[in-house]
Amino acid sequence: MLEDKSPNLTPVSAYGEFGLIKHLTEHFSLENSSSQLGVGDDCAVIAPEGRQVVISTDILAEGVHFNLGYVPLKHLGYKAVAVNLSDIAAMNAKPTQILVAVAASNRFPVEAFEEIYAGIALACKHYQVDLVGGDTTSSNSGLVITITAVGMENKEKIVSRSGAQPNDLLVVTGDLGGAYLGLQILEREHSVFLANPNMQPEMDGYDYILQRQLKPEARTDIKTILAELEIHPTAMIDVSDGLSSETLHLSDQSKVGFRIYEEKIPLDSLTISTAEELNLNPVMCALNGGEDYELLFTIAPADFDKIKNHPDFTIIGHAVDLEQGNYLVARGSNELVELNAQGWDAYLKSKRG
Amino acid sequence: MLEDKSPNLTPVSAYGEFGLIKHLTEHFSLENSSSQLGVGDDCAVIAPEGRQVVISTDILAEGVHFNLGYVPLKHLGYKAVAVNLSDIAAMNAKPTQILVAVAASNRFPVEAFEEIYAGIALACKHYQVDLVGGDTTSSNSGLVITITAVGMENKEKIVSRSGAQPNDLLVVTGDLGGAYLGLQILEREHSVFLANPNMQPEMDGYDYILQRQLKPEARTDIKTILAELEIHPTAMIDVSDGLSSETLHLSDQSKVGFRIYEEKIPLDSLTISTAEELNLNPVMCALNGGEDYELLFTIAPADFDKIKNHPDFTIIGHAVDLEQGNYLVARGSNELVELNAQGWDAYLKSKRG
Repeated sequence: MLEDKSPNLTPVSAYGEFGLIKHLTEHFSLENSSSQLGVGDDCAVIAPEGRQVVISTDILAEGVHFNLGYVPLKHLGYKAVAVNLSDIAAMNAKPTQILVAVAASNRFPVEAFEEIYAGIALACKHYQVDLVGGDTTSSNSGLVITITAVGMENKEKIVSRSGAQPNDLLVVTGDLGGAYLGLQILEREHSVFLANPNMQPEMDGYDYILQRQLKPEARTDIKTILAELEIHPTAMIDVSDGLSSETLHLSDQSKVGFRIYEEKIPLDSLTISTAEELNLNPVMCALNGGEDYELLFTIAPADFDKIKNHPDFTIIGHAVDLEQGNYLVARGSNELVELNAQGWDAYLKSKRG
Repeated sequence: MLEDKSPNLTPVSAYGEFGLIKHLTEHFSLENSSSQLGVGDDCAVIAPEGRQVVISTDILAEGVHFNLGYVPLKHLGYKAVAVNLSDIAAMNAKPTQILVAVAASNRFPVEAFEEIYAGIALACKHYQVDLVGGDTTSSNSGLVITITAVGMENKEKIVSRSGAQPNDLLVVTGDLGGAYLGLQILEREHSVFLANPNMQPEMDGYDYILQRQLKPEARTDIKTILAELEIHPTAMIDVSDGLSSETLHLSDQSKVGFRIYEEKIPLDSLTISTAEELNLNPVMCALNGGEDYELLFTIAPADFDKIKNHPDFTIIGHAVDLEQGNYLVARGSNELVELNAQGWDAYLKSKRG
């Protein structure tokens, strides 16, 4: 973390507010034809070209969403973009523009902003989105990054959370629980470091889950794959707070219940082994860990054959009538465990006991 | 200010993050036909109906942009919306939607969020914009409100900062300097209160400038007036940082210089008398005070007759070739004083001396 402890670092006051924004954004070019006017006017101008516009805003706050003790600022900038684009992907839209607002205390020098914007630039390039607006300000303390992401799609292709029907299949991309376990490893090693700064952190072998936590990717690729498979999801959401919480959101807005089969939940082998090492249940990490930024969606039962053996997708359950509630079907016993957004202590104890 | 010192106030944890957003936004309805989907999905969905979309994001940070010692939270919510809509008005577009992100430390109870959102609701109603998205989070300390404002207009009607030509007339709406003097009065009375909490603040007679500071309005009305007058500005900006700074922005982006006539700068009589009381130069307050949220724009010389006697507008100068620079033409002497975004000490001394 670049905190302003060195006389070689540049205070923000050397640029002033306008100068800083200009300095940070002057290397960003506009690549999308829909980006008509970018940073530097009162507003950005976007040409939707007949499509609808989807838009979302998310805050990342120091001490709540990230710890600068172990999160590099460049990764933070990248992640801030990725988690916002994940919301665009969850609408089945193509991300096109972002606006970035950064409030930082005066312990952050210009070089810290540069690192954050280097990560943002990398994400803009990777996801082919344009930075079209922004604001920076000093704040009383801490770092707060608010990103607004814009995407576009034709009206009939946009997917909300509210279209799932009973008997629809519940599908998830990638694997779950890894980002949460990556966080546990980072926090463990950070605690060791704080206790003894001469200790080297033991990060070897945890690469995949550390990357899931520090540099998550938005599944903007899924839209294209689904189009190729000729599948139009009936409802969709991204997995930012855990499979359990997201399933309950789909339930709430689609007015259906869900059954999720524990044995179907996709887990990476490193997720399983790290959970065992830390004496955690890997299924719990998937259900309540969050930050995986995979997509969770429902499809009509008739689409089963199109998706059943696809490596990017796992069918983990199905929708039922709302009155039947939301339950995990436990491995082996087929016991029904009610899905709950607030933790799994009782279930875990019974599994471990 | 509602800080969480009373056991009768509700901690945010009583609702949780999702519950709080739902609680705060459930009374907001969607009134604009372009608002297809509001709060509660991964994104809002907006239908631009063939128009271009203008979008802007602004941060208001405690201790930098406001002092909760004398700014009521409801006013803060209203002002946060108004200052963002001012950016939309400065593009000659119609504001249609906002997204609100609030980061607040745990000293703020649910009732504080309710006050902020009550002000936001009042502004949404007044300006006929829809709240379509948002995020709330706890933060390390302080209150940071980031608002993203969306507006729409046909491509040919949008006005940027970059279209002014030499000889164009420079026009400003309303009057300037009042918001800055309102702030001086608030800070004076707050200092008196801090020194002796039994002293009553002396606010009588300052109503207009206090309102300019605490409850500014975006000039969303100007777009209609200009259309009725059949005037299409060649460049436009809103006056958030002072007439001097905004003129320099127009100069920079339009590649022209400007002459502003000191005697033409519109000042309210209360602005003048309060400046005299505080031993300040009211013209300096207009040039560098900021937060007036009036519109500053250029029009073709041929439009002079359409606007010359209109009560909402004052012609304060004109554009010249870029090489001729940006100067204030002093009252009486016609002395040229270079416009400068960083303060007027030298000029003030010469005027006062």
